[in-house]
Amino acid sequence: MSDFYLNDIPLPEALRRFEEQLQHDGLAAPLGRESIPLNEKAAGRVLAGPLWAKLSSPHYNASAMDGFAVKAKETERATLTSPVDLLVGDQARYLDTGEPLPGWADAVIPIEETEPIGAGGRVAEDPRNPEYIRIRSAVTPWKHIRAMGEDMVATQLVLPGGHVLRPVDLGAAAAAGYGSLEVARKPRVAIIPSGSELVPVGIPVKAGDIIEFNSIVLAAQIEHWGGIAVRFPSVPDQYTAIRDQLKSAAQAFDLVLLLAGSSAGSEDFSAAVVSELGDLLVHGVAVRPGHPVILGMLDRGEAARCPIIGVPGYPVSSALTGEIFIEPLMARWLGRPEPTRETRRAVLTRKITSPAGDDDYIRVVLGNVNNRYLAAPLTRGAGVITSWVRADGLAVLPRGAQGAAAGDEVEVLLYRNTQEIDRTILATGSHDLTLDLMA
Amino acid sequence: MSDFYLNDIPLPEALRRFEEQLQHDGLAAPLGRESIPLNEKAAGRVLAGPLWAKLSSPHYNASAMDGFAVKAKETERATLTSPVDLLVGDQARYLDTGEPLPGWADAVIPIEETEPIGAGGRVAEDPRNPEYIRIRSAVTPWKHIRAMGEDMVATQLVLPGGHVLRPVDLGAAAAAGYGSLEVARKPRVAIIPSGSELVPVGIPVKAGDIIEFNSIVLAAQIEHWGGIAVRFPSVPDQYTAIRDQLKSAAQAFDLVLLLAGSSAGSEDFSAAVVSELGDLLVHGVAVRPGHPVILGMLDRGEAARCPIIGVPGYPVSSALTGEIFIEPLMARWLGRPEPTRETRRAVLTRKITSPAGDDDYIRVVLGNVNNRYLAAPLTRGAGVITSWVRADGLAVLPRGAQGAAAGDEVEVLLYRNTQEIDRTILATGSHDLTLDLMA
Repeated sequence: MSDFYLNDIPLPEALRRFEEQLQHDGLAAPLGRESIPLNEKAAGRVLAGPLWAKLSSPHYNASAMDGFAVKAKETERATLTSPVDLLVGDQARYLDTGEPLPGWADAVIPIEETEPIGAGGRVAEDPRNPEYIRIRSAVTPWKHIRAMGEDMVATQLVLPGGHVLRPVDLGAAAAAGYGSLEVARKPRVAIIPSGSELVPVGIPVKAGDIIEFNSIVLAAQIEHWGGIAVRFPSVPDQYTAIRDQLKSAAQAFDLVLLLAGSSAGSEDFSAAVVSELGDLLVHGVAVRPGHPVILGMLDRGEAARCPIIGVPGYPVSSALTGEIFIEPLMARWLGRPEPTRETRRAVLTRKITSPAGDDDYIRVVLGNVNNRYLAAPLTRGAGVITSWVRADGLAVLPRGAQGAAAGDEVEVLLYRNTQEIDRTILATGSHDLTLDLMA
Repeated sequence: MSDFYLNDIPLPEALRRFEEQLQHDGLAAPLGRESIPLNEKAAGRVLAGPLWAKLSSPHYNASAMDGFAVKAKETERATLTSPVDLLVGDQARYLDTGEPLPGWADAVIPIEETEPIGAGGRVAEDPRNPEYIRIRSAVTPWKHIRAMGEDMVATQLVLPGGHVLRPVDLGAAAAAGYGSLEVARKPRVAIIPSGSELVPVGIPVKAGDIIEFNSIVLAAQIEHWGGIAVRFPSVPDQYTAIRDQLKSAAQAFDLVLLLAGSSAGSEDFSAAVVSELGDLLVHGVAVRPGHPVILGMLDRGEAARCPIIGVPGYPVSSALTGEIFIEPLMARWLGRPEPTRETRRAVLTRKITSPAGDDDYIRVVLGNVNNRYLAAPLTRGAGVITSWVRADGLAVLPRGAQGAAAGDEVEVLLYRNTQEIDRTILATGSHDLTLDLMA
């Protein structure tokens, strides 16, 4: 029946087998690139290659002030008591901030440091358009000029390939002369829930109905990680229905996710279907929660094969499968660095038992007590999605460890930054951690 | 001319005046709510109010295994040598994982712990459908049952109002019986660049042309902060053109941003136009970079007034204005908590001078040397957008401080997490910080 649990393989071995096949099928590199317009929608996209400046920025020598362009040399004798007059037109020209410096000039004097002289030596009416300007101190060359290339010089590297574009990067790319950008094509992921007991969100339920939302959580994760997720309607627990749906999805997508119902029966179908349509690489991985993960490759005739991941039915297992298997694959296919999550060492408030063979991911809430982080384990149930909602992070008990004692230090992958965590502790007296500390 | 620099007011005073007007005009609270379908697109939206569970989850007592529902009491005499037989139908019923427990049952025995007995006492062919099951150990009540409400109980709080929905929260909301969600309406922001020297991205430029990209950076920031940004075509530096554009934008948006060209002249227009169309609250704020920020309110007849922010023309000033003034306003209007950015104490590698009256934001790169964070200041130029691209964070020198010496500790707002920062230090020998350390 569920004897495949006996065949659970260690996580590193599962990842190695999958990696090997991705390499073999030429699917271990970025999927491809596309050109998109440089506008606000480009934020979050991943540069397909390094971005070299096509223009310098500024692309010309510009006045940094409202003032007069001059030759610095012609001002060098000016003093408070012995001013120098410069003829507007030949020796001085008014510029607004940002206007280009004439070729003959090499400095700018701010308008408020000039005396505008009009006809007959009187003060000129328009200080921007006098006959002469009178100045009472020398200016050094390049003063009040934004020199061409101050920000960047044409041909220099502006952003490396694989960079995830932030708002400010779009400004730098625009200044470098770009109007469009080459970015990684987004991986397309088909999400196929299976299970005759599944019902869509928001309709009245009766006993035995399972509300299908794993596809929503996975789709939101995938979009967040830079992919395009398409949710399919649920297929019933029938071999041929699952097979036909997988076969057609494999044609049009880069990755297929087959979401098991919560019954072991439906997971058996998944494995058998994957075997028929291609290669079943892994059936059962020693991670908790998560066990019945399937990894495989689906044939699609002449074209490269399509990876498939069979996702376990319990909500926490499903979301964790996303983080362990799908997030790194998205990063790979987008050519961006492997995701890093901030970590903290924290002290367990309670004993945890764990099978020695499993990588165990334990939802915890964190607290900062006297500058030491404490981690209080939440319920371990794979069906308890609220425990993930409340978690500040995941404590990882690697295989080999048979649990951990209260007081042991563990590594916690953070879901929130420590500022937010500290704030929560202060705000909520009835926090799990407080309960744990009081126990 | 640019004598308004003399009128720069301190940042807290500017924020106070703006806040006072928002309160006065009833604009200091969330803008409103809307109902959206519960699907993956709901991620990132902000809950308009607390979400109470409409259903328990599970919403019925469910089998947690493939096995037989039984009454625990009827198994209590079963031992290895003295088994108990239960009649399938009356005393035992087969359930797949997830199927509802019959009302008369109170425990589940996994199928692999039962012996299926068929007609005449032989082993039954279909272990799921025998005449009897023989069991050799007792089961305790509630064993292998996912009890109704294990995850959440109808009426309990699932998520608080103001919560920003993450993928896993969508699963919790679905389990709680929701098919749609009440979320904060997204603030609509009009972005209007002004300046006759502006040209769009990606076209050939001549000396004096300024590539208009501040609107792209601001639009990407605003979308990231949860708003809807609409970029308008650039308006020339003409009083009536600016006035007419502002007037019409104010009718259809929650916030108007008027982006100055880089010339002081155009900033003067902005202030005068705001005065004509409503209230000029602030003209010039003592932040560096950023000075010529304008805050005001535009009249719109019967309707509530529309806030306007005049954004300075230099790219770094523009993006910083977004972070200081616009990000908190978006948070307010969405009803989400004020944004927190992770901070670190770090030691300056070089002296910084700063006018005592200004809040000074200094772009820095960070390095971790012997578990101490060092901050190397980057160029201070407001036009040097690449320095923001390269920055790991902003060191804040609050007003009152006349700069800081090498070796002083400063507070740094982080743009990247410290894991990423540490990785960069390891990966790049030619890092600014290394240069600073070697100097």
